[in-house]
Amino acid sequence: MGAVLFEGFELLDVFGPLEMFGLLGERASITMLAVAPGGVRSAQGPACVADAPLADAGAIDVVLVPGGIGTRREAENPRFLDAVRRLSGSSGYVSSVCTGSGLLARAGVLDGRRATSNKLAFGWAVSQGPGVTWVREARWVEDGRFFTSSGVSAGMDMALALIGRIFGRETSVTVANRAEYAWHEDAGWDPFAKRNIAR
Amino acid sequence: MGAVLFEGFELLDVFGPLEMFGLLGERASITMLAVAPGGVRSAQGPACVADAPLADAGAIDVVLVPGGIGTRREAENPRFLDAVRRLSGSSGYVSSVCTGSGLLARAGVLDGRRATSNKLAFGWAVSQGPGVTWVREARWVEDGRFFTSSGVSAGMDMALALIGRIFGRETSVTVANRAEYAWHEDAGWDPFAKRNIAR
Repeated sequence: MGAVLFEGFELLDVFGPLEMFGLLGERASITMLAVAPGGVRSAQGPACVADAPLADAGAIDVVLVPGGIGTRREAENPRFLDAVRRLSGSSGYVSSVCTGSGLLARAGVLDGRRATSNKLAFGWAVSQGPGVTWVREARWVEDGRFFTSSGVSAGMDMALALIGRIFGRETSVTVANRAEYAWHEDAGWDPFAKRNIAR
Repeated sequence: MGAVLFEGFELLDVFGPLEMFGLLGERASITMLAVAPGGVRSAQGPACVADAPLADAGAIDVVLVPGGIGTRREAENPRFLDAVRRLSGSSGYVSSVCTGSGLLARAGVLDGRRATSNKLAFGWAVSQGPGVTWVREARWVEDGRFFTSSGVSAGMDMALALIGRIFGRETSVTVANRAEYAWHEDAGWDPFAKRNIAR
């Protein structure tokens, strides 16, 4: 799988799902992608290393696009959006966490699809994709090969659902147990929607 | 706060707690530490950047020691253990996730303390610290300035407890909501203990 990094990405949006895929052992290998390889600083400060340039990435089984405050800049970056559009077109599953769905929407890859996003920044995500059917209350939304999750920690629940789609539910249960994670297996469970979506 | 990296660290052990501290905004700043600065590869593959050498780190308010398969090597590395012992002595709170408590125990800093660890590798942690009172069933254990958590995702629950100790419970609740995280606030909640501890 390939995770897309950009300056100001949200740490847990990336590393929650990658932990779950990482626990698959030899059944998954992870590549970190960015416009330019090298260190990429997160919204929280720590920097991570992009292994390969986004534009050169071949077809990937699972693409992961995180959110974070940096999404606001990348939504205005045609080079980034073009690369995400190309990668999404050539890959298997396309997933996002938090406001990452705003970037996918802005790149046009969610047009005609159902999707969700972070509930504290829901209005921003919606504004990036008028052609998307936005779901206000959902831990995550599956629509064909597109998996979009709600905010930050929801990415872990979505990742387990995606692992279940690929490898079967028993594998997801085993991975969650190894991570000592209480999986919220119901995609409709979303106590944060009513609390956090601005009226 | 300072997070200690080493080759083969577990991704979520580090970035779960750092996400929670990162959501404190200007009230927290995060430094990544390792024996040598530069890229440090995780157990899952992705590499992160250590900003400063472990041996030069000054007093830090909160130290975080993760687990991961790399703990087995660092437990035999006197240079690493010496640096962890010195940093733990000069800092405020000392925290660990997963088998990170095995490293703290091996460095001698948990002697006479109560502590817990990952339930799938509990025997290994215990073997690193005969002078530690190991708690078999706990999401995390607080003993004075020492906070040790159970496996992987338990670090997020422990981090919220530690944030509560420092800034008050209301702050922890706000941070959990921003991360859309369902905090397990009861330190005694541990469905993984019976399931995973080897007999």
